[in-house]
Amino acid sequence: MKAVVKAKRGFGAELSMIDIPTIKEDEVLIKVMATSICGTDVHIYTWDDWAKNRVNPPYAFGHEFSGEIVKIGASVTGINIGDHVSAETHIVCGRCPQCMTGQFHICQETKIIGVDTQGCFAEYVALPARNIWVNPKDMPAAMASIQEPMGNAVHTVLSGEIAGRTVAVIGCGPIGIMAVGVAKAAGASKVIALDVNEYRLGLAKDMGADAVINSAKEDVLETMKDLTDNIGVDIVCEMSGHPDAINQGFKMATNGGRVSILSLPVKPVSIDLTNDIVFKGLTVQGITGRQMFKTWQQVSRLLKSGQIDAGKLITHEFPLEEFEKGFDLMIKGQCGKVVLLP
Amino acid sequence: MKAVVKAKRGFGAELSMIDIPTIKEDEVLIKVMATSICGTDVHIYTWDDWAKNRVNPPYAFGHEFSGEIVKIGASVTGINIGDHVSAETHIVCGRCPQCMTGQFHICQETKIIGVDTQGCFAEYVALPARNIWVNPKDMPAAMASIQEPMGNAVHTVLSGEIAGRTVAVIGCGPIGIMAVGVAKAAGASKVIALDVNEYRLGLAKDMGADAVINSAKEDVLETMKDLTDNIGVDIVCEMSGHPDAINQGFKMATNGGRVSILSLPVKPVSIDLTNDIVFKGLTVQGITGRQMFKTWQQVSRLLKSGQIDAGKLITHEFPLEEFEKGFDLMIKGQCGKVVLLP
Amino acid sequence: MKAVVKAKRGFGAELSMIDIPTIKEDEVLIKVMATSICGTDVHIYTWDDWAKNRVNPPYAFGHEFSGEIVKIGASVTGINIGDHVSAETHIVCGRCPQCMTGQFHICQETKIIGVDTQGCFAEYVALPARNIWVNPKDMPAAMASIQEPMGNAVHTVLSGEIAGRTVAVIGCGPIGIMAVGVAKAAGASKVIALDVNEYRLGLAKDMGADAVINSAKEDVLETMKDLTDNIGVDIVCEMSGHPDAINQGFKMATNGGRVSILSLPVKPVSIDLTNDIVFKGLTVQGITGRQMFKTWQQVSRLLKSGQIDAGKLITHEFPLEEFEKGFDLMIKGQCGKVVLLP
Amino acid sequence: MKAVVKAKRGFGAELSMIDIPTIKEDEVLIKVMATSICGTDVHIYTWDDWAKNRVNPPYAFGHEFSGEIVKIGASVTGINIGDHVSAETHIVCGRCPQCMTGQFHICQETKIIGVDTQGCFAEYVALPARNIWVNPKDMPAAMASIQEPMGNAVHTVLSGEIAGRTVAVIGCGPIGIMAVGVAKAAGASKVIALDVNEYRLGLAKDMGADAVINSAKEDVLETMKDLTDNIGVDIVCEMSGHPDAINQGFKMATNGGRVSILSLPVKPVSIDLTNDIVFKGLTVQGITGRQMFKTWQQVSRLLKSGQIDAGKLITHEFPLEEFEKGFDLMIKGQCGKVVLLP
Repeated sequence: MKAVVKAKRGFGAELSMIDIPTIKEDEVLIKVMATSICGTDVHIYTWDDWAKNRVNPPYAFGHEFSGEIVKIGASVTGINIGDHVSAETHIVCGRCPQCMTGQFHICQETKIIGVDTQGCFAEYVALPARNIWVNPKDMPAAMASIQEPMGNAVHTVLSGEIAGRTVAVIGCGPIGIMAVGVAKAAGASKVIALDVNEYRLGLAKDMGADAVINSAKEDVLETMKDLTDNIGVDIVCEMSGHPDAINQGFKMATNGGRVSILSLPVKPVSIDLTNDIVFKGLTVQGITGRQMFKTWQQVSRLLKSGQIDAGKLITHEFPLEEFEKGFDLMIKGQCGKVVLLP
Repeated sequence: MKAVVKAKRGFGAELSMIDIPTIKEDEVLIKVMATSICGTDVHIYTWDDWAKNRVNPPYAFGHEFSGEIVKIGASVTGINIGDHVSAETHIVCGRCPQCMTGQFHICQETKIIGVDTQGCFAEYVALPARNIWVNPKDMPAAMASIQEPMGNAVHTVLSGEIAGRTVAVIGCGPIGIMAVGVAKAAGASKVIALDVNEYRLGLAKDMGADAVINSAKEDVLETMKDLTDNIGVDIVCEMSGHPDAINQGFKMATNGGRVSILSLPVKPVSIDLTNDIVFKGLTVQGITGRQMFKTWQQVSRLLKSGQIDAGKLITHEFPLEEFEKGFDLMIKGQCGKVVLLP
Repeated sequence: MKAVVKAKRGFGAELSMIDIPTIKEDEVLIKVMATSICGTDVHIYTWDDWAKNRVNPPYAFGHEFSGEIVKIGASVTGINIGDHVSAETHIVCGRCPQCMTGQFHICQETKIIGVDTQGCFAEYVALPARNIWVNPKDMPAAMASIQEPMGNAVHTVLSGEIAGRTVAVIGCGPIGIMAVGVAKAAGASKVIALDVNEYRLGLAKDMGADAVINSAKEDVLETMKDLTDNIGVDIVCEMSGHPDAINQGFKMATNGGRVSILSLPVKPVSIDLTNDIVFKGLTVQGITGRQMFKTWQQVSRLLKSGQIDAGKLITHEFPLEEFEKGFDLMIKGQCGKVVLLP
Repeated sequence: MKAVVKAKRGFGAELSMIDIPTIKEDEVLIKVMATSICGTDVHIYTWDDWAKNRVNPPYAFGHEFSGEIVKIGASVTGINIGDHVSAETHIVCGRCPQCMTGQFHICQETKIIGVDTQGCFAEYVALPARNIWVNPKDMPAAMASIQEPMGNAVHTVLSGEIAGRTVAVIGCGPIGIMAVGVAKAAGASKVIALDVNEYRLGLAKDMGADAVINSAKEDVLETMKDLTDNIGVDIVCEMSGHPDAINQGFKMATNGGRVSILSLPVKPVSIDLTNDIVFKGLTVQGITGRQMFKTWQQVSRLLKSGQIDAGKLITHEFPLEEFEKGFDLMIKGQCGKVVLLP
């Protein structure tokens, strides 16, 4: 089968023919209908420090997808050949205290599809049945593929009250603009998007942001005060990973506010705990993955109902063979979600 | 000043000239700009059993309003002459364990404006400063007046997660149709409205209900199953007060669902606790009043931002003198909110 | 192997020799070290209406136990021969919306061990690996056996805040007295136990109840007022199933209180929703099963740490052969937990 | 009257005779029965950088106390002469969005008694009636005085689930040892106390800590692993303010754990957000003040019921005149709470 393979330790990837994977008793084989590019894939593609320490070429990468079940293992129940599916990309142990208490998304032994295992930038992918999320048959393949990253946005935004609240989204990459859409759909009264990239701020605006701030050009904290009647913002969704932006996030939050961090800053960040967190009574949440599968249910419904316009999130589609075009756009920050079609 | 007065123990009310109220040190005097009719006012007007046991004519009734501060007591701070305001209608003691722990809305000594005290169907009303909610100056008077009942709807709907959930609203009187609007604004993926009155079902549809069920004509539980993929509905907002509807509410809820009851059934209701609540792991909430003033903040923002279209909620406006037209429509169930203009 | 078998449709049970069960790929075989008698087993033993409609003799019943793994199926991971274990008694489907969102305890397709399947009043029992909870090796077998019913008590009591609150436990059967112990261990400032059986009230007192009320002899609501400074009680744990007691439970709760119902009244109960739930702003919770496996983790720790004295909960131990003595005590209400030793 | 006065800008304080304060209409005058020394008072006494920038001598300082009402303002209701009382030390505005939504403890305009106003190290103190908490008459004066700081401990520990959880308390000053007591009373299964001061670790042990770690002598993270079965601890209460200890706190927390920070580090702290907060899915809470007055209700009940042994918390009592002895002990860290008796 065709696959986009991280062939060697260095920049880039290549299209190769590899074997269709075999499945174990508790696994299923899926024919991939659509797959989308994640920031993590870009790390692997550009071969940054994180990638060098984590992944072992050669292997097919990619983890966001939708497809159709074509084969099921002997012990698999509740999933049928022909089902349209996506998959949770965290493969969890099921036995650590976190898994045993239903907090699978913070399993102490998590492996990630396409990072630690063979991925889905390919015609077929094999996965444990317990990772499968069944999609409605009438959900378009590209929309179904972006449920995984939209799950990150949903998990971040909906980790607390939203209706009638003001929300800042810092960092308008694909998940940031999804977060804008989720916050609007969930009843935020004002959503303010921040970035330094005008193209991305435009996407945020299209997704319904009530105001956008170019952090490179405006006085962020003053503008935030103006936009929130001097109160500060109720909820901050931090998706930039930039130390200055993170600290601005704490400072723009109103007393008692929530700061939910999905980003992964590359170095420790110096934080004024006393004034920015303790005296303000803030709640800071680390957000990782998606709640299994509560978040998937939320995502599926928000997309299926049309509450969030997937068409605005997916800015580009290419045949799998043209994956380099997609990576190029991602590197330049000139896109929302990029979907590849095998 | 002009006032609509419940003059005697019996059906109806009359327009009278009464004295402008005086204020105490901790009170304010408000010139009423708009006032709206509540179901409670209809009980008083029609002189039903509840009214007979609770209210003491003669007095001006009414409790929903907006207006302008024209006088402030000596000890009042933070409120100024000229402020546009509405008011929480529960006058609370401030010293019972509920009040001391911030649960003012369930104060053990609650008095209600226009029921236990002089009301706002008048040109002026005097109220404790601590009950005042300051409105944005650009909020239209009629919209500002309906914040109090909309607070009931918000308190009911937002007493748990809503985004990406399915919601049933049973009973589409004015607060029911507000609940439909709130649920949609807060990201419910499907809102289903139930009533026996086609006019009201039409209002619910206009407010954004994804489906409506005429309980008198359809098999409610079968239709609900169809509308929820056989799962049952996540959240039930009970606003009908009818025993059969209440029991249908429990039965239509999915396992683990939430049933929030704002209605006040006139007699005890027989409930199959074992099968409808315990085995299903339901949460049932009694909802009364509005959280002071968290609910008011939510309402104000939902209206000001345009997330909920007040224009669709307010179906009729009359001069105060024509109050009888308003009560007539309320009795017949042929209206959303009716606003009176002094 | 020896087993206590519900041999025929009628009162009682008998000790028989039956085959050691075989296991499937995803199951384990456990040598039973201790098993305890649940109220459900008494329904089956006495052959009441519920039992007549639910169970199909002949089969070995019983579902509370602890034991040692002696055989594991081919696909089982994370559990080893020699592990000391107990088991969640709800066998869930894993694919309904409730299971998919981590709410396994309210699975729409739940089957119960020893009710719908072969049980553990026997020398061996076979169970799905996913139901297994591994015990610390130094936990005594009898203590380990009562974790399942104690899970009901923990799930009921800890479904909301407890520390510094007042708690009423209505109905002091084995789970009621466990609830008393859990509430005290979790920091309730006053725990009041109610029953009509003096022996059971004595057990509640021994478990740490600060006050006991014999509902047959005292004016329950007046006494509750006296015991709570006229405020009412913060949390009610309803474990009696009696309609009068249930209504007293609603009435004794303070405004904003929580009523968690674990009992299963045999008929619908007439409830004054308006005055007892809506105006009071109560939260009523239906409680079933145990959260998988959050509740088990809580139970295990509360017992292992000695926070709850299992010795006071287990009033009787008999060899499996003398099961009739245990059932006799349960029927008479003259015991806490009764443990049988195979 | 006698008062301990911060007379000039520099180390120390002095006993002076000053006027008994007069009261406004909404205030009360209290005869102080007991007053206790807070860490904040030590900052003022030793005249550190914080004190230099915040307080304006000369004035009587001190804010923790209990006493008896001897005079009430004209507009005060619900409080009577002769009542035994303590007081919330945050004087809040009542009109900012936080106050309007019941989050008084994070009011944007907070003033603190004895810091920004005349304090209670004196025979009498005048305070706004809304700050008063009425004590049971049989509560000893010294116990009643330490409710304010114990409120900090309760607010920190009870800001999430505790029963059946493991808890680390980092920093065993007076509030730290109170936190140990609160965690044990609220059902924590294992409480681990950390400090570098052996005297304080001894106090923690006396308060019920299941284990103590001298951070200066032991490998903190390794010891924590051993004490938590390699899982990490569920809840961290950070009360040390030390950057290394704070970072150890994040690292010792289990995935999904809670870190509640009451301490006030003097400088920004560098934090590995990615590995220590985001990937672990931690919740970090800034804790300030006490919830008005939910926390006070919890504290009052925990003390009155004897769940927490105030006798172990209060290690020293002196006449007000001997205040220097108390400050000396506080500076040396050789005490729990120190109470002064006017």
